Amino acid sequence: MPTPSQHKDASTAQTDNQVPTGRRAQKREQTRARLITSARTLMAERGVDNVGIAEITEGANIGTGTFYNYFPDREQLLQAVAEDAFESVGIALDQVLTKLDDPAEVFAGSLRHLVRHSLEDRIWGGFFIQMGAAHPVLMRILGPRARRDLLHGLETGRFTIEDLDLATTCTFGSLIAAIQMALSADQDSNDDKDQIFAAAMLRMVGVQAAEAREIASRPLPEISPVKPQ
Amino acid sequence: MPTPSQHKDASTAQTDNQVPTGRRAQKREQTRARLITSARTLMAERGVDNVGIAEITEGANIGTGTFYNYFPDREQLLQAVAEDAFESVGIALDQVLTKLDDPAEVFAGSLRHLVRHSLEDRIWGGFFIQMGAAHPVLMRILGPRARRDLLHGLETGRFTIEDLDLATTCTFGSLIAAIQMALSADQDSNDDKDQIFAAAMLRMVGVQAAEAREIASRPLPEISPVKPQ
Repeated sequence: MPTPSQHKDASTAQTDNQVPTGRRAQKREQTRARLITSARTLMAERGVDNVGIAEITEGANIGTGTFYNYFPDREQLLQAVAEDAFESVGIALDQVLTKLDDPAEVFAGSLRHLVRHSLEDRIWGGFFIQMGAAHPVLMRILGPRARRDLLHGLETGRFTIEDLDLATTCTFGSLIAAIQMALSADQDSNDDKDQIFAAAMLRMVGVQAAEAREIASRPLPEISPVKPQ
Repeated sequence: MPTPSQHKDASTAQTDNQVPTGRRAQKREQTRARLITSARTLMAERGVDNVGIAEITEGANIGTGTFYNYFPDREQLLQAVAEDAFESVGIALDQVLTKLDDPAEVFAGSLRHLVRHSLEDRIWGGFFIQMGAAHPVLMRILGPRARRDLLHGLETGRFTIEDLDLATTCTFGSLIAAIQMALSADQDSNDDKDQIFAAAMLRMVGVQAAEAREIASRPLPEISPVKPQ
C-alpha cells in the first residue's frame, strides 16, 4: 500500500501515463480500499472461502472486470485483506503495550490480544482457519514487531533465546495452531486460553513456569484496533 | 488405510458387491499403494506441487481414469502420501525413542529427528513448505504420539503443561514453522537447528533453559524409517 509520501512523489511525476498520479492515484487507492472493505465485510458474514470476486466488486460498487486492475487474483486480495487486518491490530498493540516496562508482559500481552481478537472477530478467525498463507502474512506484518519485543527481552536478560528468528517463527506457528484449536472448541473452554497460550510462549523464551503464569495473568490493557491508512 | 483385520472382515462378507473382498481387496490395496509410491517418487524429484495425476498414474502403470476409483482428487492422494510418510517416521521413532528413560529426552529426540528428516528428505521437506494441510495431517498421525510423550513428562513431574492439547498443537505449529525456516536458509546454518528447536520446545513445556539445552544436545539414537504396511 503506497504511503502518503509515495503519493506525493507520484503527483510530481506526471509525465508517465502508466503511473497513476495525483487525484487519479488517490481515486485508485480509494477503490482498492473499497475492494478490501467489501471483501472484509462479506468474509465476516460468510467465511473467507465463501466469497467470490463478483460479490466483492458488487459490494464495492465497481464492475467485475475492474477487479483485475487492482489485484491479479482473489488470493492476492485475500492477502491484502489479511495484511490490513493484522496491521490494524499491530498498530493498536504498539500504541498500548510498548508503554509497559516489562518485556515479558509486552510479549505476553500481545499474544493474549491476538488470541482474544481471533475469538471475538470472525474475519480474523477466518484467516486463521481458512487461510493457508496465514503464517507468511503474520510473519511479514507482525513478525518484525514480535522480533523487536523478543530482542528487548533478550537484551534485558529477561528471556533465554538461542535463535531469535526461530523463536519468532515458532511463536506465530504456535499462535496459528492455538487459534485453530480454540476456534473449533466450545466457547466456554476458551475463557483463559489467551493466558494459557501466553504462559506457554513465555516458557518457550525461557521464563520459568510459575513466573510465566503470573505474567500471563496480569490485567490486560485494552487496545482499539484502527483501520490502517 | 484398512488394517489386515479389516481385510479379513471384508473377505468374510462377500455378499456385498460394493465392498472389495478377498483377493480383490488385496489387489485394490496394492494399486492404491502403487499410486502412493508413484506420487512420492515423482514429488521427491519435482516438488509436491509439480506432479499431476496423469504422471502419477503413468508411474503406477494404471490408466489415468482409474485414479478416481482410489482417490476423489489430487489433494486426497497428497494427504495419503503425507500420512504414509509421517506414519513411517512415527513407527521408527516409537521403536527407538520410547526405550529411553527420560520423557524430556524422548520428546526432544522425536522433534530433533523430525527436523533432521525434513532437511534430509526432499519429500518431507516438500510437505512442510508446500502443503497447506501439513498441520492437520501431522496432528492426526503424530499428534497422539506427541501427546503421549507430553503426558508422560507431565505425570512424572518432568514437564509443566497447563493444557496438554494446546501444548501438542503448538509443538506441531512450531515444528512446521521451524522446518519452513530451516528449508529456506543456508544448509550450513542448520547444523544444530534440531537442537535449538528441541531446546525451545522443552522450555515451552517447562524445562529450565540450561537443562533444556543439555537434554537437546545428548547423542541422538539412530532411527530407520520403514514403509508402513
